[in-house]
This record gives sequence, structure tokens and C-alpha cells, in this order.
Amino acid sequence: MKKVLNLIAGLLVLYIPVTGQTLLSTDGNLSMTFSLTDNGTPRYSLDYKSKPAVRPSSLGFKLKKGGDLKDGFEIVSVDTASVDTTWRPVWGEEAEIRDNHREMLVNLRQKSTNRLMSVRFRLFDDGLGFRYEFPMQKKLSYFVITDELTEFAMAGDHEAYWIPADYDTQEYEYTRSRLSDIASLADSVTGPTYIWVDRPSDKAVQTSLQMKTDDGLYINIHEAALVDYPCMHLELDDTNLVFKSLLTPDPAGDMAYMQTDCVTPWRTVIVSDDARDILASRITLNLNEPCKIEDTSWIKTCKYIGIWWEMINRKSKWSYTNDLPNIHLDKVDYNKVNPHGQHGATTDKVKRYIDFAAEHGFDGVLVEGWNTGWEDWSNKMKDEVFDFVTPYPDFNLPEIRDYAKSKGVKMIMHHETSSSVRNYERRMDEAYKFMKDNGYDAVKSGYVGKIIPAGSNHFSQWLVNHYLYAVKKAADYKIMVNAHEAVRPTGLCRTWPNLIGNESARGSEYQAFGGSKPSHTTILPFTRLIGGPMDYTPGLFENNISKYNPKNKSWVNTTLTNQLSLYVTMSSPLQMAADLPETYEQFMDAFQFIKDVALDWDKSYYLEAEPMEYLTVARKAKGEDKWFVGGTNGAERRVSDVSFGFLPAGKYKATIYRDGKDAHYRTNPQSYIIEEKIVTPKSRIKIPEAPGGGYAISIVPAK
Amino acid sequence: MKKVLNLIAGLLVLYIPVTGQTLLSTDGNLSMTFSLTDNGTPRYSLDYKSKPAVRPSSLGFKLKKGGDLKDGFEIVSVDTASVDTTWRPVWGEEAEIRDNHREMLVNLRQKSTNRLMSVRFRLFDDGLGFRYEFPMQKKLSYFVITDELTEFAMAGDHEAYWIPADYDTQEYEYTRSRLSDIASLADSVTGPTYIWVDRPSDKAVQTSLQMKTDDGLYINIHEAALVDYPCMHLELDDTNLVFKSLLTPDPAGDMAYMQTDCVTPWRTVIVSDDARDILASRITLNLNEPCKIEDTSWIKTCKYIGIWWEMINRKSKWSYTNDLPNIHLDKVDYNKVNPHGQHGATTDKVKRYIDFAAEHGFDGVLVEGWNTGWEDWSNKMKDEVFDFVTPYPDFNLPEIRDYAKSKGVKMIMHHETSSSVRNYERRMDEAYKFMKDNGYDAVKSGYVGKIIPAGSNHFSQWLVNHYLYAVKKAADYKIMVNAHEAVRPTGLCRTWPNLIGNESARGSEYQAFGGSKPSHTTILPFTRLIGGPMDYTPGLFENNISKYNPKNKSWVNTTLTNQLSLYVTMSSPLQMAADLPETYEQFMDAFQFIKDVALDWDKSYYLEAEPMEYLTVARKAKGEDKWFVGGTNGAERRVSDVSFGFLPAGKYKATIYRDGKDAHYRTNPQSYIIEEKIVTPKSRIKIPEAPGGGYAISIVPAK
Repeated sequence: MKKVLNLIAGLLVLYIPVTGQTLLSTDGNLSMTFSLTDNGTPRYSLDYKSKPAVRPSSLGFKLKKGGDLKDGFEIVSVDTASVDTTWRPVWGEEAEIRDNHREMLVNLRQKSTNRLMSVRFRLFDDGLGFRYEFPMQKKLSYFVITDELTEFAMAGDHEAYWIPADYDTQEYEYTRSRLSDIASLADSVTGPTYIWVDRPSDKAVQTSLQMKTDDGLYINIHEAALVDYPCMHLELDDTNLVFKSLLTPDPAGDMAYMQTDCVTPWRTVIVSDDARDILASRITLNLNEPCKIEDTSWIKTCKYIGIWWEMINRKSKWSYTNDLPNIHLDKVDYNKVNPHGQHGATTDKVKRYIDFAAEHGFDGVLVEGWNTGWEDWSNKMKDEVFDFVTPYPDFNLPEIRDYAKSKGVKMIMHHETSSSVRNYERRMDEAYKFMKDNGYDAVKSGYVGKIIPAGSNHFSQWLVNHYLYAVKKAADYKIMVNAHEAVRPTGLCRTWPNLIGNESARGSEYQAFGGSKPSHTTILPFTRLIGGPMDYTPGLFENNISKYNPKNKSWVNTTLTNQLSLYVTMSSPLQMAADLPETYEQFMDAFQFIKDVALDWDKSYYLEAEPMEYLTVARKAKGEDKWFVGGTNGAERRVSDVSFGFLPAGKYKATIYRDGKDAHYRTNPQSYIIEEKIVTPKSRIKIPEAPGGGYAISIVPAK
Repeated sequence: MKKVLNLIAGLLVLYIPVTGQTLLSTDGNLSMTFSLTDNGTPRYSLDYKSKPAVRPSSLGFKLKKGGDLKDGFEIVSVDTASVDTTWRPVWGEEAEIRDNHREMLVNLRQKSTNRLMSVRFRLFDDGLGFRYEFPMQKKLSYFVITDELTEFAMAGDHEAYWIPADYDTQEYEYTRSRLSDIASLADSVTGPTYIWVDRPSDKAVQTSLQMKTDDGLYINIHEAALVDYPCMHLELDDTNLVFKSLLTPDPAGDMAYMQTDCVTPWRTVIVSDDARDILASRITLNLNEPCKIEDTSWIKTCKYIGIWWEMINRKSKWSYTNDLPNIHLDKVDYNKVNPHGQHGATTDKVKRYIDFAAEHGFDGVLVEGWNTGWEDWSNKMKDEVFDFVTPYPDFNLPEIRDYAKSKGVKMIMHHETSSSVRNYERRMDEAYKFMKDNGYDAVKSGYVGKIIPAGSNHFSQWLVNHYLYAVKKAADYKIMVNAHEAVRPTGLCRTWPNLIGNESARGSEYQAFGGSKPSHTTILPFTRLIGGPMDYTPGLFENNISKYNPKNKSWVNTTLTNQLSLYVTMSSPLQMAADLPETYEQFMDAFQFIKDVALDWDKSYYLEAEPMEYLTVARKAKGEDKWFVGGTNGAERRVSDVSFGFLPAGKYKATIYRDGKDAHYRTNPQSYIIEEKIVTPKSRIKIPEAPGGGYAISIVPAK
């Protein structure tokens, strides 16, 4: 990290002239303008190659007391700067990330109240970030935001790839529609049916929101560095096609408690006329603070298997017994009840998983349902729902711990909180210490269910604060965190790289809950992944879930090689092979790709991309002469056209895992072909992709 | 504690016959009846010497789901028992407490739903306790109470001594009125004007509620063992004179989250035709669980002084500087700001207090405002408001620690949380550890301001859980807790005797905020103290607050010897001498009583009592041949008539501190007489008490 910090410290700051309040990106493609209206309302706009990306849009806030911060402003000063530096993430899609932007800090004063507010704009070649800053001042010390008025005025009735706004979950199918059709389609959206779903409006959507204009611009709106502030949704005025920030409220209906000096998260607009640039954008990471962990040597990428999919598909259970009407953790004696015999996390099975992991070179084994309390954990508003330290009688933790160690495999802890966040915080130190005492370095945490205390939402300021608290405290213990159902990521993994994963979208588990659209993974990289990696849990080789549980008629809506492609197209330092070992044993030739694929990269190449249709990505493994290509296709059959210009000079052996001729996610998903070819930087190969299909290529120097 | 536990284990359980569902107290004075109405609604009533104390009153609950638990019940069985045992509290008004009651457990089944609910009644000679119990059952596992329907139907338009219901504060003046006048008087109540006041209804009052009937019955309603349940208020149907339980809601408007098996707190009705029996009642303690702390040797009574009154009266300040618009604890450097010079908790002053404490035999010194953050701690909804471990630059903690130790004086910690309870819980382990590392054994905690997270109330289930969590965790560290602004006590100090104090009422601080009624301390023992001791902070010798701060025109509405009486009439294991050392130095003859008075008792004798008018109490110091008498008077001049029959045979020297002839709380409060008399068990002395006056007597064997 020292190196990164030195780079930051040494960044080149140039004061450059601006024409009025206009800022140009270094490549000249993007132009942003700040202005005040006649009544002193701050506005900004953004053009890309002279086309409007964001029409003039208002900035400001409604406050609970002291008058709103939305008009009556004058400009005190405008400071500009230019930054061009690089930094090295601990892990990620590139070994080195360039931060090249021009900055404009507009310092405003509200004349009637003398309150100061600034807006800091950073214009990159691939988009804009801006945030509000409130200097410490007597006139504005503590304040409560009741509404953020930030607008994103669209220049047309764009196509949007959206999921509905929800204060508690992101686990929706994406809908592609015109902006003007969002409201009418809101009711037809497929999403979770859990009781904690909380959708505020039929006209509001979540970020990151991907759009495409009729004249071929790709526009993406999200936020970066969401710290101590509520998560933002976007509410559409569908007459004027203007989005407005819609924050997640607290139980009192207020949004954010602020104390100057302070800043909001960055609001980001990525723009290009090439969809691939959206995927290549590093704006979200660049707008986050540098790494705050001094020694990051303990942060490792992790390829893992786990006792999880068999509970998701209902082959086995998290729970241990059916004997008891309910569980009081402090009173129950599991040694005195009858096990129901379907418990997944048994010592013997875990040891078989450890064996499989060791044999095939996996780093870790996740086990869910290892700890007491799973008989009645969900939706009970139960405060003391788990203690995070007590195993079931048939999970012999010391034996498993020692066995895993002897095999060189890391056990991955699981902390389902059932959203009882106070209970988790109270027990967190003990739980983390228990992990370290037993050799666990990483935890998958979960926030299923309504937040306790009642009335709070998953994405409110209060909870946003909690998730980061859990990550920071984990860092104190040198523990890596993969938080599910937590707020969607906004690039915080730059600052806290022990946050190695999040769910925060509809993961592959839904393939056992009725299935997801074949196009689902062609939109996630444009949306969910803009904020950070996802623990999507790919690798589902068995499509017919009823083979695991005859009562479960769900179907995995992808081909087998589509699943392989996801290890490349959905980059993550944490990747699961989600299916069961006995399934993989039937497809060891295809499984080889999962064994081979890297998790960390020197460089990534975005070869083909169209939201919700397809994407093809090549990546060079970090520090190795190995390349991997993933082509993920949507619902329509197509042919991918791959140029290997990303390779250095030389001859390489490419092993291609692709859809069989008649492959189809629904009718013939396990049809695949594995072929080897010699490729050079000049090679160009056309690879057919089935509906719901895709392919993967591993490339090594030819001997 | 072993001894207590053995006593409990060995209690005599007799199954006694009952006539129908009627239970008689062992002395035959109280009779309670349980019945079901035609539609299966459970009801109870209570008579005292054949007079109705509680007319037939309904029992039950409204639930969020699954149908209410209020009617359609049938009786499954009725179990009765009789208990007569004694137990020894760690500290208190008596060395040995008798628990003599008859019990009736009515097991009910709701016919339409097959759900089971029981009501356990315990009838003592001085009143009734009952609670609801829900056995573990498949038909009723988790449930949410939206309303408790427990009624207390009064038999007449009694006089009541009441403060209005409030979900966040109890710091009101008491009003004496007919029940039917409560609503019309609600607006004229004097109470705190803080922004967190939250009064739900003009017809609702707080418990403990004291009443007096026209035919001379004293009736007191409260609750015991408030654990993991919201605090109860009482809402009056003033047409029918029926009180109904009014619980404190959570932010979602629900009341209590329950998981069977579980119980509610006890609802208590103390009844007598002698007001002194209300004060002598041990029902609240008897209905709590035995002590759960194995080794209680570290729990000590504590007489203390402190740097507190001078901030309350605004002579000095908790804060250190006026330089900063606000404080970010993680950024501020107090060494770089200008002190405003009015900071109270300076090293030199603390050392003078330690000297004074040591010289006059006090156990401890409390210091408020010792830690950083007081510049903007209140009503800011500020999450990280205090860290509980960082002293101001002018409070040299190691020097003070070592000086106190050298003088044999204990420092008392202060943890104001500003009601940011998550922040307190997150830092609690570190804060308690910091205390132990620096020799602090007791903490005064505070919950001023709106609860954070917003939308929660001080007396909701969520917060009730927090206060006990803080006490239990303190016990782990062998720390004693004196919690201010927490929920009112309900006898939990029996179970957790490290809870040595609470505020939970209008304390003597209000004498610097405009004053309290002269009768205030004649009603507190009938109301607030029913649940446990109060850190009332008596000992105010200087009535004219403007002597401390010319801008503060408040007046202490008592005579000086009234203040002395409170050390006896308001028994507490923790007693402050609240005024400034320099004030005490002017009245060293009277101050001698505060130095002498005991804090823990073998036996208490309630000699005279009338709510809101007067009370006279004698107590024998635990393990010593010393007796102390306190006579606290209300607003009207009277003569106390004290018989010394509580003394054993022999001659004793009584030092009497009483009002001077012309003493008056308003015009001549510092007029007092100190006289010595020889008394025997046959002595009877008439002692005049001034308006707002009172007296104190210390008694030792005559040499």
C-alpha cells in the first residue's frame, strides 16, 4: 500500500483555465457545465461528443429545519484542478488503475442564510462524478436531510435496463423498456416475494441504472463511496424524463443525519457511445478513498466450494431437528432432540467437501447451517437469533478445523444475521475471535429478513453504517467479508479491500427458485458490478433441479458453458463453484476450466458488449502468462467474433469450452464442445453461442 | 448469594384448596377472584376487607396476526400454591425480606385456535401481582403484541397522584386530582420541555400510580420485572374509571415481540387502608427473580460527592471550548483550541473534591464533563457523540486516578450516551475495561435526548432490552450502574444488585431548573421508589441558585433539614451530597448528618405517611447499633409525632436536625436547630415541620 499512497501523495495538480463553469474531459469528448438559475438554483449538465447525456439538472436538498438548500445560491469561488495518477488495487480487474480527471469545485453561498455548500465535480474521459460538500460552519453544523433533490434529466425516452426501487432488496429480474414504460411495467416485474420487500414507488428504479439512447449513447447512473448516508434510488418524472434522487428513509421518515464538515457519496454518470467502455470504466473505484488497511498481505482471492447449493435447492436443510416449536438459543439442548436426518452440514459431508477441494485445488470450503438456531431463524423478528459460535452436534468443528488444515484448505465461516443487527454487533467481537481461533479468515454474512429493530430498512443510513462497521471490525481481525443482502457496493472495496464480495442482486440461487432470465448475466456487469464484485456463485452444471429434490421443478436457464463464461465476465476475487461435487464428477472435462481460471488480473479487455444481449471479456491472470476469455450470451443465438489482439507476440494454446451445436438453455443445456486451438495475436475466431449460452477459453503459451 | 439460593430452593410449596377461582391472602384481608365471562374473556377482581380495590377487569392482548388473545377462552386447569420464605438482598431497606404469598395459576385455552395462555396470580398480604405466561406450543410460537388489554377497573373516582404518560421521560411534577380530572389537567402539568418529550394521550398516566379512595384505601399500580417487554403506562377510560395498559410502541407502532415460552412483566396492585403499608410493601422485589450474580462481594453502597451541581446550576460547564462549530471526535484536537475557562472537571478541582471526600468520609467522587465531546452532545442525533475513554486536556486522568487511590477515595465514572445507544453498545466493552484499568467500580450512565436510531422511544422493548444489557455486561466487569433517563425501575435490582441506582423521575436537578414543588419528595416514595432506589441527589443546602450563577433565578423549594431527611426517607445504596463543598463548609454542623447517615439497613419502620403530604421513616443501620429517622414534609406546616418503639431496650442519644421556628422553604430555608436528646423505646417526641421542611435524627447508644 505504501506505493499506492506515495502515488497519491505525488499526484500532479494543475490549475487549468475554465470557460465559465464548463469543464472538458482530457480527451475532449465529455463536457460538463455548472450554472445557477435566476433564482440561484445550482444546475449541471453533461454532453458527450456534443450530444446531451444529462440535460440541465437541479442540485440541492430539502432539510428538516433551517430552510432548504436548493436555491438562493451565489457562487463564492470555483477551484479547478487536474489529476493524472495511477494506483494499484489489492485485487481486481487490473493491476494498475489510472485516475485521470479534471476537477471543478464550485463553492456556493446561500445568500439569505449565509450557509455554504460546495459541489465537487470530477470529469473523467468515461464519465462524471460529483458530490456535495459541506464545510464546517456556524450556520450549518448539524442538519437533517429529508430529501435529496439531485436530478438527472434525460434527453430522450431512452431504453433502460432496470430493477424497481426497493428499500430492502435488489434481488429482481431486470426489465428492458423505454423510460416512459417503467411505471406501467412495475407490476409485472419478477422479484422476491419475501415479506421484507419494500417498494416505494412504481416510477422509481435502483442504481446502477444502465440506459441506451436512440442515437447510441450508453449512460449509466450510480453512486460511489456510499458512507454514512442512505442508499440512493432514482425516481422518474416520466412526463419530463427527469430522474430525481430518492433516498432510503429511516423509521421517522428522515433520510440523512449530517454534521459538517461532511460530504455526500459521489453521484456518477458514465457515458460512452461504446457499450464496452461502460464495463471498462473505473470511475466508481477512482472516486473512493485509497486503501485504509496498512498491511494487506492477508487479503487473498478465494476459489471455493461449499455446502450451500443443496440447501438452496432443498436437497438438504440448514436446520437439524423438527422436534421443537421454536428455539431459545440459551435454553435448547440439541443433544436431547431427534435430528430430522436432512441436516446438510454434517462432519462427514464437510470432510468429503474438504477432500474434493484439496483434490481440485480450491482454496476454501463454505459451510452454511453449521451453527445452532436454523430451525426458526427467518422472519420471526427474533432478536437473539444466532450466536455465531455454537455448532450443531453433528458438526464437529475441531475435527473439521484440523482436517481442513491437514489438507491445506481454508474453512469459510458463515454468519447469517437474520437482519438482527444489534444481536450481530453485540456478538461480533466474540464471533470474529472465534473465527481466528479456529483458522477461519473469511466470512459470508447474510441479512435475510426484515431489519431488527422494526421500522428500519436495509439501505438506510443506519444500516449502511452497520455494514461498513462490520467490514472495518473484520479488518481489525484480518478477516475478509462477503456480505449478502447488504447494501449494493459502491466501490468501497478500494478503501477496504477485505470486502471481497457482496451479493446485492439476484444471484444464481434464483435458478433454484424458479429460474432467472437467460439474459440475466448479460446485464449484471453493466449494473450490479459497476459498484464492485458479486458473489454470484456460478458453476451450475445440473439444470434440472428436480434431480436434487423431486419437489423442486426449477430449471437453470443457461447452458453449461455459459456457467463457465461467468468466471471471466463477472470478475470477482471470490468465486464459488456452486454445484455439488457429485455433479462436477460427471463433467470433469468442463470442470477443468473452473479449476484453471484465475481470480485476479493484470489487465482486462472488453471485446464485445451489448447490455442484456451479450458480452465477451478477456483477462490476463495477474503475474502469469495465462489469459482467460469469457463470452456470455443472452436469450438469442449469436456468433461471437473474438480477436486475440490482446495477446503478446507468440503462439498460445487456447482451450475452448463452447456450446454444442444444438445447445439451448432450455432443451439441451449440457451439450458442449471442448477443443484446443493454437492462437496468436492475429487470430480471429468465430464462436457460436446458444440461447442462454456462452463459452470460456483458457490460454497458455504453446509449448 | 448461596444462602439466598438455598432458601429459594427450599421454599415450601403447598397445594391449597380454593373456592372456585378465588384466592385469599394469608391474613384474609385481600381476596382476588378470577372468572371468565360468557364469551370467554378472562377477568380478575380484587377486594380489600370486602371493599372493591379492583372491580372485575379484563385480561388479554391484541396480536398482529393470528387473532387476538382476549376472548373465547376456557379454563384447562387451575393450580394453586402457597409460599412463605425469606431471602436476603445484597443491599436495601431490610436485611431480610419475607415472601409470603398464595399463588393461583389459571391455565387457559382459546377454543377456536387451541392456543394456550396462562395467568399467574400471586396474592400477598399487601397486594396482588399477576402476569401472563405463554407455554411453548405449536399454535403460538412467535407473536407480536399490538395492544395489551389488561384492565384495572377502579371502584370510584379516586384521588390520584399522577404524572402524565410519556414514552421518553418521567421527569414530571406530580399532580393530585380526581381520576375524572386527569384529562382536563393534562395541559397544566409541569414537566420537561425537551424535544424528546413524547406524550401519547391526555388520559394516560405513568406507573407507579398511587391512588386514595374516599373510603380510605390506598391503591398503587405498577409493574415488576420489566424484562424484554415495553414499559407499561395506564390509559384511563374516565367515563367508566377503568385503566387499560398502554404499552410503549416501537417505530413500526407494534409493542412487543414474543417467543414462547415467555412471560410478561408482573402487573402489581398494592392495597391497604394504611398508607405506611404501601411504603413497606416488598411486592416489587418479591416478584423479581433471585440474584443472578454469584459473587456479590464487590457490590458496595456508596456515599459520594461530585462535580455535577455546578454544571446543573450553570456555574461551570461540561464543555471545554467555544472555538468549534461542532465536534468530530475522530478529528478534533483539543490541545489546539482555546479553552473557554469555565470547564468544571479540571484536575485541580477534582483533587479538591477528593480531598473533601477523604476528609469527610465519602466513598466516591463523580466527575461529569471529564471526557471529550460535550461541546455539542445534546439533541444533535449524532451517532458517534462520545467515546467514553478520552479525557479533556485539563483532566489528567492518571494523576487523578493515583491521587484518589492515595486518599482511599473511589472515582465514579460518567457515561452520558446522549441516547446514541448503538454507539454506546459498540464502545461498551472498551469503556468498561477502561474503567477497571483505572480503578473505577461504578458508572453513572445517561440517556438524555431522542433515542438514536430515530423513531425509537426510551421505554420501548428495544431500549428496555438495552438498559438490562448494559447492567448485565457491567456485572461481567464487576461494575455498578446508576442509569439516568433509563426506564423506570421495576425491582430488577434484586436480580442484578449491581444496578445500584436509577433516576427515572424528576430529580433534585430541577431545583436549579425552576424548582420543584415542596411536596415532591413526599410522593416519590409512593410512586417512583416502588420500583427501586433513586439517585435523587439530595443535600442541597443553598436555596438561592443565583449565588452560583447570577443568571439562574431558580430556588430550591425545601428547607435545609428537609434535605437531610431525604437520606432516610428516600433510601438508596447510592447517595450523593449534591451541593458544593464550599457550601457545606458553611454548615458543617448540619452536614454532620450526611456524614453519619447509613446507606444500608437491617430494618425499616414506616412511622407516619400520607402521599404528597408527609412521611416519617426510621431505619436501623445494617450491622450497627445506629438508627436514623427522616421526616419529610410537604407544603403545609405540621407536627410530626414520633414514637421510638422501634428501638430495643436501652438508652440512646438522639441528635435531631430540625426546622427552625420560622423556617419556610421559600422565606427562611436555612433556619434549623440541632439538639440532642436521650431517648428510649418508650419515648415519644413531637417535632414541628416547616412548609417544605422536615427533620433528620441520628440515634446511637447513650454512653
